Amino acid sequence: MPVATPIAATPEQLARVTFNADGLVAAIVQEQGTGEVLMLAWMNEASLRRTLETGRTWFWSRSRQEYWCKGETSGDRQWVREAYYDCDGDTLLIVVEQEGRGACHTGERSCFYRAFGAP
Amino acid sequence: MPVATPIAATPEQLARVTFNADGLVAAIVQEQGTGEVLMLAWMNEASLRRTLETGRTWFWSRSRQEYWCKGETSGDRQWVREAYYDCDGDTLLIVVEQEGRGACHTGERSCFYRAFGAP
Repeated sequence: MPVATPIAATPEQLARVTFNADGLVAAIVQEQGTGEVLMLAWMNEASLRRTLETGRTWFWSRSRQEYWCKGETSGDRQWVREAYYDCDGDTLLIVVEQEGRGACHTGERSCFYRAFGAP
Repeated sequence: MPVATPIAATPEQLARVTFNADGLVAAIVQEQGTGEVLMLAWMNEASLRRTLETGRTWFWSRSRQEYWCKGETSGDRQWVREAYYDCDGDTLLIVVEQEGRGACHTGERSCFYRAFGAP
């Protein structure tokens, strides 16, 4: 099993993150090494802190109104290796080691498996 | 100057995209070749169509309430090479050839130039 590597964010760094009217920030998840963009999901402040502290990705489900830890039931866990915030502080980029089949609930490795213009 | 390569999306593909209550969908922009995630911005249906038809990235500015074509004034243009929609249809991934200095208005190549935990 991969090892969790918590990230010690400073209060100044955390204060740079701005949450929308629903208290959420978009988090892009990218695979370490391949650079593949795996998914986008939403975090609130508590799930961001939990992500950094546990080294696993925690999101806020807007439809279910609950926290979820990616892969907790499926085994397709994400181990956080790097985490960035953008110039506006309103988007996060989480670089992970992806365990299992991949990030998508369909069984695909990435959620972005369908291209415009493809047959 | 790079060449524009329009993408002929089918009506079925366009119909898979779901817009939020504000009529917007999040668009992640990734650099072709390097795989670097450059930025995230928002598109409405018209800017998505314009992006696919012109081969340049068009977004909707929520703060200015207007369309903007990335790099039109700065010269840091993005030439669309591939475009994907995710399993839920609520996020797009646009793969581009980035011209000029980069995607970020600060002069950085990527908007995600600050890492949590970094000194």
